[in-house]
Amino acid sequence: MALLLAINGAGENWAQRPWSERFAQRLPSRAVWTPADALQNPDAVRYAAVWKPEPGLLATFKNLEVIFNLGAGVDALLTDTTLPRVPLVRVVNDDLTKRMTEYVVMHVLIHHRKQALFVAQQAAKTWNAPDQWAAGDVRVGLLGLGELGRDAGEVLVRIGFQVAGWSRRPKTLAGIECFSGPDGFKAFLARTDLLVALLPLTPDTAGILNRQTFADLARDGVLGKPVLINAGRGGLQVEADILAALDDGTLGAVTLDVFETEPLPQQSRLWSHPNVTITPHNAADSSPGAISDYVVGQILAHEAGKPLRNVVDRDKGY
Amino acid sequence: MALLLAINGAGENWAQRPWSERFAQRLPSRAVWTPADALQNPDAVRYAAVWKPEPGLLATFKNLEVIFNLGAGVDALLTDTTLPRVPLVRVVNDDLTKRMTEYVVMHVLIHHRKQALFVAQQAAKTWNAPDQWAAGDVRVGLLGLGELGRDAGEVLVRIGFQVAGWSRRPKTLAGIECFSGPDGFKAFLARTDLLVALLPLTPDTAGILNRQTFADLARDGVLGKPVLINAGRGGLQVEADILAALDDGTLGAVTLDVFETEPLPQQSRLWSHPNVTITPHNAADSSPGAISDYVVGQILAHEAGKPLRNVVDRDKGY
Repeated sequence: MALLLAINGAGENWAQRPWSERFAQRLPSRAVWTPADALQNPDAVRYAAVWKPEPGLLATFKNLEVIFNLGAGVDALLTDTTLPRVPLVRVVNDDLTKRMTEYVVMHVLIHHRKQALFVAQQAAKTWNAPDQWAAGDVRVGLLGLGELGRDAGEVLVRIGFQVAGWSRRPKTLAGIECFSGPDGFKAFLARTDLLVALLPLTPDTAGILNRQTFADLARDGVLGKPVLINAGRGGLQVEADILAALDDGTLGAVTLDVFETEPLPQQSRLWSHPNVTITPHNAADSSPGAISDYVVGQILAHEAGKPLRNVVDRDKGY
Repeated sequence: MALLLAINGAGENWAQRPWSERFAQRLPSRAVWTPADALQNPDAVRYAAVWKPEPGLLATFKNLEVIFNLGAGVDALLTDTTLPRVPLVRVVNDDLTKRMTEYVVMHVLIHHRKQALFVAQQAAKTWNAPDQWAAGDVRVGLLGLGELGRDAGEVLVRIGFQVAGWSRRPKTLAGIECFSGPDGFKAFLARTDLLVALLPLTPDTAGILNRQTFADLARDGVLGKPVLINAGRGGLQVEADILAALDDGTLGAVTLDVFETEPLPQQSRLWSHPNVTITPHNAADSSPGAISDYVVGQILAHEAGKPLRNVVDRDKGY
C-alpha cells in the first residue's frame, strides 16, 4: 500500500526529494514511491500525489483510490483523458488562502493608493501629494467567490472598500454584494472599478478577461479608468485584448501573476508596458510542508471512513 | 459667537476657502471668520479651528472655549507658549484612522512580499520566484497603540502577521502582544522584524527612531534584516542614523512618510537610497469634509453639555 509521488513542476518548490521526505516522515508506515518505483509494483499504489504528471501515467494503477493535486489548479490535469475516474482532490488550505489574500490586498492597495506614482516621484525627487480618495470610494469586484475570493473579500471589506463578487452559482457573504450566473455578470462589471480575477480555468472561464469584459467595467470611478488584477489562471486572460485595452484607455492599469504562456516570453510587450505590473506566478505559493500536511490529513480521514474534502467536480472543472 | 478658522498649511488640502465654506454650511447660524475678521471683533470668538496658526494669535481671544486642531499632530501647536489653557482637541476620526491603516498594511505587505524585487525583475524581464515566507513568519511591531496602532494592528492580525505593540502605559488588545513603558521597550524591539512607528511627537518620543533602537531590533527574522516604517512624525526619527543603519546593514529597508524637514530637502540622500521608499506625508490625509464634520459634531455635543472627546493632555503632549 503505497503513495505515488509524481512531480514535474518548475522552480525550487517542485523538487521531488523534499516532498518525498516530508511524506515519508508524516506517513511512516507507508511507502512513498517515485513513478519509476511505482511502475515496478503498480497494484500496490493506492494514492497519488501529483503535480503535472506525465499524461497516461495514472491510468497504470488499477487500485488507485484518490488522486491529490498538489497545486490549486486542476486544469492541466483534467486535459489527460485517461485520468482514472477516482476522486480527485484539490488543495484548499489556509496557508494558500492566506497567501493569496496577502497578494490581493497588497495589489488592490497599490492601485488604490497610486503607489507607482510615488515611486516615480521619488525617482524624480518630487514632493507632491495629490488628493487621495478613501477605500470606501473604490468598488472592488471579485471574479470568483470560492475560499480565495471569500477570504480576500473579508479583509478588503475590513479595510473599507466597497466589495462585490461574482460566482457561477448564487452565494451570500457578509459585507459582499453577490452577483451570479451569466445574468449577473454585466451588472457586476458595471459597478466594478477594480476587478480581481480568482476563478479556476474551465471551458466556461477560458478567455473571460477579454475586450468585452473590460469595456463593461465602470467608467465613473475615482481611479479614472478601471484596473484588472489576475491572480487566477493565465488561460482566463486574452493578452492581446489587455494590451489593446491599456493602449486605448479601456483599462488604466493591470497586475498579472499568471500568463497564457509561463514563464512569460521575453518578447511579450507586457514586460515593458508602463501600466503593467508583473509577478512570476507566485501570488500564493503555499509551502510544501503545509500542502503535504493537508494531503496526509485527508488520507488519514479517508481511512477513518470520513468523506474527502475539496473533491473536484469534473463537469464543472474545479 | 463665531468660529475662527486659521489655516497655514501647505498643499491643496489646506486652502482656506473650501474649509470656510464647509464650516459655514454645517454651522449655518454661526459666523466663520478668518484671522483678519476675528481680530476686528475678538470677544465674539468662541471656537478656533486651526492648522499651524501664527504663534500668539490665539491668545488674543479671551472668550475662546475650545481649540480644534485640524490635523492629528499637535506638536507644532504646543510650541506656542502663549496658547490659551482652554481644551485643545485633536482629530481622531474614522476616516483618518482607516487611511492610516491602508498605508500601514500596504507598506508592511510590500516589504513582506519583496515587491521592490519584483519591480526590479520586471524591468530586467526576469521571471524568478524565490521562496516566500508566510505572514505568520513575520513579527510586526507597532510603536504606538492609540487608535491608529490598534486599527492597523487588527487588520495585520487578520492577515496573519505576528503583531506586538508598545505604548507608554500598559494596554490589552486582542491578538496583539502588548509591551509598555521604558522597561518593555527593549523586549518589544528584540522580537520585532518590522517596526511601524505611529507615535505622537513629544519630548519623550523625539528622536526615538535612532541608532540604538535599530540595533535592538530582532536580527533572526525571515526578512534578513529589520525594516522600519515611519508614518508618525518626522521628529521621531534621526535621519543620519537611518542612513548609517541602512549603509552598515543594521536596517534592511525603510519606508518614510514623514521627515525632520518637510518637504524633504532635495539634497537629502534619502531620496536616492536604494532601500528607502519615500511618500510625501500623505499616509493619512483625512478629507476636509470628514474633519469638519468631526469638529462640528464636537461643537454641537459641547453645546448640548456633553464632554469633549480627544482632548490633548498637555503634560503628555498628545
